Amino acid sequence: MAAIGPSLMCADMGTLQDTVKRLDQAPVDFFHFDIMDGLFVPNFTMGPDMIDNLRPHTNKLFDAHLMIEEPERYIDLFADAGCDMVSVHAEATIHLQRTLQKIKNRGLKAGVALNPATPLNCLEYVWDTVDYIVVMTVNPGFAGQKFIPMTLKKISMLNELIRESGRNIDIQVDGNISYEIIPEVLERGAEMLVCGTSCLFIKNETLEHATANLQRFLQDFEEKNLANS
Amino acid sequence: MAAIGPSLMCADMGTLQDTVKRLDQAPVDFFHFDIMDGLFVPNFTMGPDMIDNLRPHTNKLFDAHLMIEEPERYIDLFADAGCDMVSVHAEATIHLQRTLQKIKNRGLKAGVALNPATPLNCLEYVWDTVDYIVVMTVNPGFAGQKFIPMTLKKISMLNELIRESGRNIDIQVDGNISYEIIPEVLERGAEMLVCGTSCLFIKNETLEHATANLQRFLQDFEEKNLANS
Amino acid sequence: MAAIGPSLMCADMGTLQDTVKRLDQAPVDFFHFDIMDGLFVPNFTMGPDMIDNLRPHTNKLFDAHLMIEEPERYIDLFADAGCDMVSVHAEATIHLQRTLQKIKNRGLKAGVALNPATPLNCLEYVWDTVDYIVVMTVNPGFAGQKFIPMTLKKISMLNELIRESGRNIDIQVDGNISYEIIPEVLERGAEMLVCGTSCLFIKNETLEHATANLQRFLQDFEEKNLANS
Amino acid sequence: MAAIGPSLMCADMGTLQDTVKRLDQAPVDFFHFDIMDGLFVPNFTMGPDMIDNLRPHTNKLFDAHLMIEEPERYIDLFADAGCDMVSVHAEATIHLQRTLQKIKNRGLKAGVALNPATPLNCLEYVWDTVDYIVVMTVNPGFAGQKFIPMTLKKISMLNELIRESGRNIDIQVDGNISYEIIPEVLERGAEMLVCGTSCLFIKNETLEHATANLQRFLQDFEEKNLANS
Amino acid sequence: MAAIGPSLMCADMGTLQDTVKRLDQAPVDFFHFDIMDGLFVPNFTMGPDMIDNLRPHTNKLFDAHLMIEEPERYIDLFADAGCDMVSVHAEATIHLQRTLQKIKNRGLKAGVALNPATPLNCLEYVWDTVDYIVVMTVNPGFAGQKFIPMTLKKISMLNELIRESGRNIDIQVDGNISYEIIPEVLERGAEMLVCGTSCLFIKNETLEHATANLQRFLQDFEEKNLANS
Amino acid sequence: MAAIGPSLMCADMGTLQDTVKRLDQAPVDFFHFDIMDGLFVPNFTMGPDMIDNLRPHTNKLFDAHLMIEEPERYIDLFADAGCDMVSVHAEATIHLQRTLQKIKNRGLKAGVALNPATPLNCLEYVWDTVDYIVVMTVNPGFAGQKFIPMTLKKISMLNELIRESGRNIDIQVDGNISYEIIPEVLERGAEMLVCGTSCLFIKNETLEHATANLQRFLQDFEEKNLANS
Repeated sequence: MAAIGPSLMCADMGTLQDTVKRLDQAPVDFFHFDIMDGLFVPNFTMGPDMIDNLRPHTNKLFDAHLMIEEPERYIDLFADAGCDMVSVHAEATIHLQRTLQKIKNRGLKAGVALNPATPLNCLEYVWDTVDYIVVMTVNPGFAGQKFIPMTLKKISMLNELIRESGRNIDIQVDGNISYEIIPEVLERGAEMLVCGTSCLFIKNETLEHATANLQRFLQDFEEKNLANS
Repeated sequence: MAAIGPSLMCADMGTLQDTVKRLDQAPVDFFHFDIMDGLFVPNFTMGPDMIDNLRPHTNKLFDAHLMIEEPERYIDLFADAGCDMVSVHAEATIHLQRTLQKIKNRGLKAGVALNPATPLNCLEYVWDTVDYIVVMTVNPGFAGQKFIPMTLKKISMLNELIRESGRNIDIQVDGNISYEIIPEVLERGAEMLVCGTSCLFIKNETLEHATANLQRFLQDFEEKNLANS
Repeated sequence: MAAIGPSLMCADMGTLQDTVKRLDQAPVDFFHFDIMDGLFVPNFTMGPDMIDNLRPHTNKLFDAHLMIEEPERYIDLFADAGCDMVSVHAEATIHLQRTLQKIKNRGLKAGVALNPATPLNCLEYVWDTVDYIVVMTVNPGFAGQKFIPMTLKKISMLNELIRESGRNIDIQVDGNISYEIIPEVLERGAEMLVCGTSCLFIKNETLEHATANLQRFLQDFEEKNLANS
Repeated sequence: MAAIGPSLMCADMGTLQDTVKRLDQAPVDFFHFDIMDGLFVPNFTMGPDMIDNLRPHTNKLFDAHLMIEEPERYIDLFADAGCDMVSVHAEATIHLQRTLQKIKNRGLKAGVALNPATPLNCLEYVWDTVDYIVVMTVNPGFAGQKFIPMTLKKISMLNELIRESGRNIDIQVDGNISYEIIPEVLERGAEMLVCGTSCLFIKNETLEHATANLQRFLQDFEEKNLANS
Repeated sequence: MAAIGPSLMCADMGTLQDTVKRLDQAPVDFFHFDIMDGLFVPNFTMGPDMIDNLRPHTNKLFDAHLMIEEPERYIDLFADAGCDMVSVHAEATIHLQRTLQKIKNRGLKAGVALNPATPLNCLEYVWDTVDYIVVMTVNPGFAGQKFIPMTLKKISMLNELIRESGRNIDIQVDGNISYEIIPEVLERGAEMLVCGTSCLFIKNETLEHATANLQRFLQDFEEKNLANS
Repeated sequence: MAAIGPSLMCADMGTLQDTVKRLDQAPVDFFHFDIMDGLFVPNFTMGPDMIDNLRPHTNKLFDAHLMIEEPERYIDLFADAGCDMVSVHAEATIHLQRTLQKIKNRGLKAGVALNPATPLNCLEYVWDTVDYIVVMTVNPGFAGQKFIPMTLKKISMLNELIRESGRNIDIQVDGNISYEIIPEVLERGAEMLVCGTSCLFIKNETLEHATANLQRFLQDFEEKNLANS
């Protein structure tokens, strides 16, 4: 079943410890942290101290998505804060291999995130150094943006490239992942869902209810798929 | 009496809503938010969503300290989030007057923050556009750094310049403001204390106790001063 | 027939209003404005005020070619000035989809311009957001440079990619477009010609004469082509 | 009498050749060109080709005000275009002496322009390399902005510093120079007026009339001053 | 036989003149100079004065590898110093064609260097302007780094692309080129070996001995290859 | 007597080891290394490997002058290479106090270098963290430039400020320090002379002879001065 990763930037920012504790008991698989620098994207969100603060309250995976320029400067900062996975943008560094290797040398999973227009050939020579690819399905920087349909084609092509590579690399999708979109991305090979205001942090619904719903939806989808295959 | 401004970056990051509610009942005057971009300073902390989230829980002043390059790009973002005061670094913009004016045009108090080595003459032609000056007494970027003694001289000289200007401009001090340092900065004219791990967010001490202690200390200092004058 | 677009940067800069009025009566299809920032290219030319000034004197299309870094910052400025089409360089932004979408959200045609060495795969995921592609056939920055033959191959390949996409996307060519070159680029699929000193703004020749010549040349070419097919 | 310098960026951009020819016959002393790069200021205006184009139509001084980052890169470009005077911003270069020397080595007058908040001490070691100082009395980037009163004090202090230096350095003022402001800046030592929409390019008034008015105003002011002294 | 190019950054920096004189008598084909700017790579090494100083002591080719941002600014500096070949990084310039053309206009061989993760399609439209490609087989910046296996695949694919282009373009490999690696890269088409601490500048071995060894190894490899074919 | 510091960038670059060994026996006091990044200044020279290579051949002080942007990134690199003194440019960092403190924390002497136009007030709050000031008497970047007379005034004023501070801070002068200039700078308070092509590395003169001459000149000057006082 696809992994569920609540995007904490979409939660109630002043009570994230409580959110993490509750989601630790819910069927979620990893926690997604969006880090912004006001340069790569026009916003600011949180930093290593927040990650460090939440770390003792769950054993689930912590996944930092660095939407920052020259992320190679900050790998240690986020590794020290307690991340298990760190993704960097291919558009943000001219030393992609070095940066991924630096993440792996710290014992973490290394991811490459791609803006909607970024082609896949930037991955061609890092298949052996990357653990997951983050396909941005909206333009990064703010919550609540519109899904970009062209990214569905990108997921399909990426899935094919990964199969050709013979490697075990996960596809993470990030941006307006709603119930309408989920089947579309799962069918094309997505395995990790970054879940924000479109499917998990929903007004007038408890986190417990929302995660249970999402889990059931994913299970149903999987059963249907198995039945069809 | 000098104003007390807890630096929320020094509090428990995962439970800031609770911190703000409790400090709303305590003798503190404003809340200080440190915003970092990984470029002006080598760290990341929080963004407008945190400010927006905490805004409903207190009516006290929200003071954003923008440790970011070209802060003129982000005045609206922080004004919209609910700030009452915004300070920008003189070293971070070549358009200081424009940036301060932009803050004031939004109806907020405009501050200029100064790194430890930055001379005061950068303020010479903005006396009529600035509401407060933030004298950094440590190098910005991380909590828990060493107080820089030379900044005491800077506070004195700044105080004199403000008197000469005949204007009502506050001096805020920020960085390792401990009980040993407080009398030193107050004597030299500081009126707003950014309070972090050195005097307010202290291990094994409640916020209620810590703020009460600090209030008493400031009152005693003031009485002694009045008695002496 | 291919569209004729006089490049105003090649005209007499001090009398552009007169030029536009005369070309408004001549067989030209759009006006091309080159905007430079001294950073993306080592020169400066004109800005939104010029566009705004010329706008009342013709109803023909205004096409701004932004040779500037981070063009996303300036879409509104050029939309407000009266442009109908805006092209941005793929090399100048890491947010190509967002930038094109921003242009389209203003109701304008969105173009992507490509430096001579830039490969076509940067277009792979923006086919549904782009209206025209500007193939630079010289290195941008100055008038009067040498045509780069390799770009002919690029036009052919681009033409094929557009056909495969099944979309209606125009190919604009820009740089030393002379009478010798025009048949070469038309045969390979170019549909919009940016016309400068090589075929339109010619010494000792009136604009009326030059445009009539060019029109006749294009008509002849088309007829010959139809006859051959 | 103070020198009158029409700011061509405030004129009708599409007919600047005509404007220059007419102003060549009017009582103006120099032509002021604002060059912008979208980085130092958020706008674009014109470049060396415009200067080159207008050069044959008058023998009066051409004064380029470079509102661009690292202006040292572009001194030759503007010298070749026909400028007689070039000013660069103190905030835009870390090599101010080298840049001014480069201007002078080309046989041109070298100026330093100062943003409203910039202190005067940046001039301390270039008194022997500078010919004029441009005091920006608005924030640079757009026409039609509000005069900043603090800059009056700056003009006075600059005037005093120049007298102390014993050198012959002109003070140019630039930004919203209206009939109300002119006496204020003249009294404080300004000698070159950059004239835009506030006193020269005025709706429903001919350039001939506007310049004659301004000349008379300056003559009256001077006579009154002489009478008083 | 593959060309041998000692990387002078791996030699004894204080006695390079002596090194060049001795290697001039040894079976080496070109001298490789690594130039760094602390920005493209996190180190500094040498500059044009060193090249100029060594130039009179050999007639062999001087090959400068510019690991610097915007290398187009410095082509003349290195051409004047006496280089015969200059390579620039595809990741360091948005004007690759212009930069290569600038090198060729100076009468030098023009190379494109590629970081380990950089895909080959950036070369697609410069085949007619490039003389050699530098495949970085380690991350650039320091001596003594680990060979990246993925780059072997890149050499093969590059070799194929060059054959398809029908042009005479050399493949240079740079980074941890040891006796174990040499057969691997030669088999895949490498023709120029940048030789550092892994095969030429070896402790307790004379340069004469080391170069003779290497020459013999390459001859043996070639003979074996010819025998097999 | 003033300290003599040969600027190694002016020596024969290919035989610096020999130069250092010979100067180790001559009356020189420190070795001066100019490090350039092609950004702060338009040139490249040498790096930490050269310093490391020369370190074993003398016990005299090694003084690195970092003409690079954001020098705070490279303090450790040069400390590890064996420097005893490191100077950074005030224009190159917005964190001058932090950078100087970082140098001192490594046990080295910390210097601030100033471009010719840079005013002295940038030193106002680092008197207690700085060990020496480098007054650039030419514009940095190349050997053989013209002495800038205004810098004499700067040396005098700096000397006075140092006396007022009551601290023991050395004045180093760097740039075209010739026999004509030396008395001028010594009289004004310079104590460390960076010696290049104008007084030490002279054509047709041995280093032994040149240093002996210089030593005698400085002794004579001192004796004369003592006699006069």
